[in-house]
Amino acid sequence: MTDERRGAVNTLLWEDGALHLIDQRKLPLTFETVVCRTAEETAQAITDMVVRGAPAIGAAAAYGMALGAINLSGKGDAGGTEQPVSSVSSFVERMEQIGAHMREARPTAVNLFWAVDRMLAVMHGQIERAATDGGDEGALTALADRLLEEAHLIAEEDRQICRDIGKHGAPLIEAGGVMHHCNTGALATVDYGTALGVIRAAHSAGTDIHVYPTETRPFMQGSRLTTWELLQEGIPTTLITDGMAAHVMAEGRIKSVIVGADRITANGDVINKIGTFGLAVIAKEHGIPFYVAAPVSTLDLTLKTGADVVIEERDEREVTHILDQRIAPEGIGVYNPAFDVTPAEYVTAIITEHGVVRAPYEEGLAQAAAAAKKVSGKSGKEANSA
Amino acid sequence: MTDERRGAVNTLLWEDGALHLIDQRKLPLTFETVVCRTAEETAQAITDMVVRGAPAIGAAAAYGMALGAINLSGKGDAGGTEQPVSSVSSFVERMEQIGAHMREARPTAVNLFWAVDRMLAVMHGQIERAATDGGDEGALTALADRLLEEAHLIAEEDRQICRDIGKHGAPLIEAGGVMHHCNTGALATVDYGTALGVIRAAHSAGTDIHVYPTETRPFMQGSRLTTWELLQEGIPTTLITDGMAAHVMAEGRIKSVIVGADRITANGDVINKIGTFGLAVIAKEHGIPFYVAAPVSTLDLTLKTGADVVIEERDEREVTHILDQRIAPEGIGVYNPAFDVTPAEYVTAIITEHGVVRAPYEEGLAQAAAAAKKVSGKSGKEANSA
Repeated sequence: MTDERRGAVNTLLWEDGALHLIDQRKLPLTFETVVCRTAEETAQAITDMVVRGAPAIGAAAAYGMALGAINLSGKGDAGGTEQPVSSVSSFVERMEQIGAHMREARPTAVNLFWAVDRMLAVMHGQIERAATDGGDEGALTALADRLLEEAHLIAEEDRQICRDIGKHGAPLIEAGGVMHHCNTGALATVDYGTALGVIRAAHSAGTDIHVYPTETRPFMQGSRLTTWELLQEGIPTTLITDGMAAHVMAEGRIKSVIVGADRITANGDVINKIGTFGLAVIAKEHGIPFYVAAPVSTLDLTLKTGADVVIEERDEREVTHILDQRIAPEGIGVYNPAFDVTPAEYVTAIITEHGVVRAPYEEGLAQAAAAAKKVSGKSGKEANSA
Repeated sequence: MTDERRGAVNTLLWEDGALHLIDQRKLPLTFETVVCRTAEETAQAITDMVVRGAPAIGAAAAYGMALGAINLSGKGDAGGTEQPVSSVSSFVERMEQIGAHMREARPTAVNLFWAVDRMLAVMHGQIERAATDGGDEGALTALADRLLEEAHLIAEEDRQICRDIGKHGAPLIEAGGVMHHCNTGALATVDYGTALGVIRAAHSAGTDIHVYPTETRPFMQGSRLTTWELLQEGIPTTLITDGMAAHVMAEGRIKSVIVGADRITANGDVINKIGTFGLAVIAKEHGIPFYVAAPVSTLDLTLKTGADVVIEERDEREVTHILDQRIAPEGIGVYNPAFDVTPAEYVTAIITEHGVVRAPYEEGLAQAAAAAKKVSGKSGKEANSA
């Protein structure tokens, strides 16, 4: 089922016992895939931004954990921390190590931690249920199978979650210009997208929209990835640079701004791609609604506000170079935070798969998280550890 | 005198009867100069952004007009509209044509029109004074000599104006972070710079500043040119992308923002490089002063507000490509306005060579313009036609 090619874009695909990732560093000029056969390779692909976007990172990490389990169970051929073990206790120990390493792949997107925690919880649940212990090789294989099944389930859920976000968000999008930042589309998720999913859903519903994606320096997710997706969908699009946002809003072209999120804290502060906060300030100044679309797995209700979030700083080279070509002089100091914090007061609404949440956010976000746990409980799966 | 190498950077230099321009499209990777021997070549260099920055465009246009005059007088070897003429009346007719063409090189920076008008006024003044008429070849040479002298004077004045702007502006700059947009330095003027001149002056005065230049997409004046100048000056600098401005301000790193201007209308609206308005909105939200540094030649008091200014739209390729490398997919729609309008209410002060002007701007800007005319009158030169 999981290798069924559902969308036009297969951000991540499980095929022939390996995770195939579209190399998002090279789009739209080159379409290549990176094949991960170990948890280690998957973590590296996340760090290197072969795959990016909080929900896609979550799903990739889940498959990475499954790859680790497969290798530990003796079905793979990896060495190092992933070489085969002979007991469940060693399996658990190694999986905890692999999970700790996976969590370090990127520091800001909470979906990464969420996916790792969920996979480890499934592992422990399976062991408890089977009351398995000792060196049963069959037990290890069963564990690996169960973890791969969970990764498939996470991917499958993400597909449905994005469509539910789209369904809830589409009515908020007025006809006219919609500004969008970074990439929150099929490439940021398993398919369809979060904020771009809302845009897709509004377009499908017949709302006459025109998308203004910001190019999103330094990694150019907007100009490289979002435009690529919108072209394929046939949605009217005009690319702008990040600095043009205020001018385009002042010209009256924009009816709403919609972005995704990498983490949302209990009070509704939104941690998202660098440049988001500036757009939110400018939108507020122009009286334009500012929407955030994200799955419940993006909520981190353990943190009170955005001030508690670690903001990843990335390599200077992303700023001084574009597509491996140097643009700034050697020796210049560079600051490259990958995310910023948009305080809840700038956010008009947060669109989740369990409905639209508005201020005060504490209550609404807690309700959305509870609704997600309920669904998870109903399907008999381990509860979301977030 | 004019080929005296005063600064480290000779944005424009008159040498061997030609205008030598640093090719700013290629910095900082390659240092090349473009040599203009005709008004036509100069206009093309302005259109192509070999030279950019409002004051530098003004001075380059003045030299371009001088080149036209030299060619018309028979000292050059140009053809077309610049081939030699034999009468003062033909000279005047052609110079008016050349001026009209030069004005079309770029539509937004008023210094371009100001310089062309000043050169034509000097021509007419010289003719009136000499009461010259008919086909006197000596008269044409004298006119060409006078126009070249005026171009040198404009360049020389620009050097002094920038230093005066620096002197008036430096006391406004607090120790700490200074955010700067685009390039307003030696490369945007004849040397020294406007907003970057204020930064230079503050640094020279011993204020402990740290500059955060925005890279300024799409043309990358910040990452390519401003960083290059700041490195040469040894001023502490940290390059950021345009979208990082709000985050850096929220972190408390910035004490002031300073930018240049391409045109300032009677009410104090500032037309400047795209991205300026967004920075102004974000600075206001954070209670950070937002300064504009510009010579009086940037004032266009004939226009009431920024709504009356034509905003140049440039080639899509500047957005879809960086240094000739494609980054966005083919077929995508692009919007590329080169400037935006920052309403006067966002501007803390405008720093001119005749002092610091604060709201209400109408009166202060008119006084600065009057002071400039007075200086121009005192030196016996033709009045600034702006």
